[in-house]
Amino acid sequence: MAEVDVKQKILAANQAAAASIREGYQSSGTLVLNLISSPGSGKTTLLEATVKTLRDRHRLAAIEGDIATEKDADRLRAFGVPAHQILTGGACHLDARQVNQALETVGDPLVACDILFIENVGNLICPTSYDLGEDFKVALLSVVEGDDKPFKYPAIFSRAAVAVLTKMDLLPHVSFDLAAVRNQIRTLNPEGRLLEVSAKTGEGMDQWYRLLEEALERKKSGRSALAG
Amino acid sequence: MAEVDVKQKILAANQAAAASIREGYQSSGTLVLNLISSPGSGKTTLLEATVKTLRDRHRLAAIEGDIATEKDADRLRAFGVPAHQILTGGACHLDARQVNQALETVGDPLVACDILFIENVGNLICPTSYDLGEDFKVALLSVVEGDDKPFKYPAIFSRAAVAVLTKMDLLPHVSFDLAAVRNQIRTLNPEGRLLEVSAKTGEGMDQWYRLLEEALERKKSGRSALAG
Repeated sequence: MAEVDVKQKILAANQAAAASIREGYQSSGTLVLNLISSPGSGKTTLLEATVKTLRDRHRLAAIEGDIATEKDADRLRAFGVPAHQILTGGACHLDARQVNQALETVGDPLVACDILFIENVGNLICPTSYDLGEDFKVALLSVVEGDDKPFKYPAIFSRAAVAVLTKMDLLPHVSFDLAAVRNQIRTLNPEGRLLEVSAKTGEGMDQWYRLLEEALERKKSGRSALAG
Repeated sequence: MAEVDVKQKILAANQAAAASIREGYQSSGTLVLNLISSPGSGKTTLLEATVKTLRDRHRLAAIEGDIATEKDADRLRAFGVPAHQILTGGACHLDARQVNQALETVGDPLVACDILFIENVGNLICPTSYDLGEDFKVALLSVVEGDDKPFKYPAIFSRAAVAVLTKMDLLPHVSFDLAAVRNQIRTLNPEGRLLEVSAKTGEGMDQWYRLLEEALERKKSGRSALAG
């Protein structure tokens, strides 16, 4: 079997697992997000602020993908949120089969929740091709990473329904053409939503919470999570 | 052929190409570096400062790996340095066969130089396994990415003989435990070199230039590029 056939086979198995995850959460009305970014763009920090704010209103849970260490799951557990760590042991992205296995192993805390956050392995490339059964992908980009990134990594910014520019508090300290980045993201995904936040100062976070709660509301009522 | 066999076959073909690259540069005494980091850690910015400083003393050249855009090669060409862009079209790392092909296509500007910088695709994971015939790998980590990263991405920090902490000028604006990161890197690679720089302010850059010139000197005299 050639290299390309093996890749196709892996993607097909992933797709079947993703469909099964999506079906399960369709009936429960759970909102499922797949967060993707480079290492250090602030996925876990965004989630820390999010669970702190929303945990009293909704049942939240998280799956954390990493190559090594349980640090990210521990950071969310500190807020009383069930968080399951998947260690890929070298693999550069989560696979829907791993998520399925986590749901079977952990059960209720991950299955019977309102919002499930899946934080992918820190990598702006490989996770893009693997559907995890999510309602939508969220691509994060910190303003410290440079204003050329959407066009350099077009696949993720085309496919993520929501893009979040993070660490906006650092904007005064770096050279970052905000208008150019907005434009790149809009070009790659004209229908997408773009938020600009700082989890540290709270800037823009209300919009993020509103987006999540509106998506949850839509999902619960059987509609597509994002108005399209 | 199973998935794992295909991976082995790819790595074996890569290794053969890497050996051929290494042999070619052994006779010319060219120092070859493979720079690896997340997107936005500052690889190109480090190289811009480096070529600006060293171009009058040495013949420099660069190979730039990206999924899309020629931006990085253009940034180095602006300093009069021959820079060849390899567009991987989605692939998450450079492969030695691509580098070999670039050397054959471009010829002298890349072949007859003193230092060849190979800037890998922005990804802290996948490039780690692919030898490009380099003298040593350089792993970059910006202080904005968080102080948990070496232990979360242990493979690259174990294998890179040189680790460079970048964007040190932003240290006052972020929460980053420098001592912890030094310790993680030292644990993963006790023999490795660790530099702390800001290409923007120039902090620490002299050490980087000295390291390069000493490595070049050693390579030219037929020794291992880094003192062991």
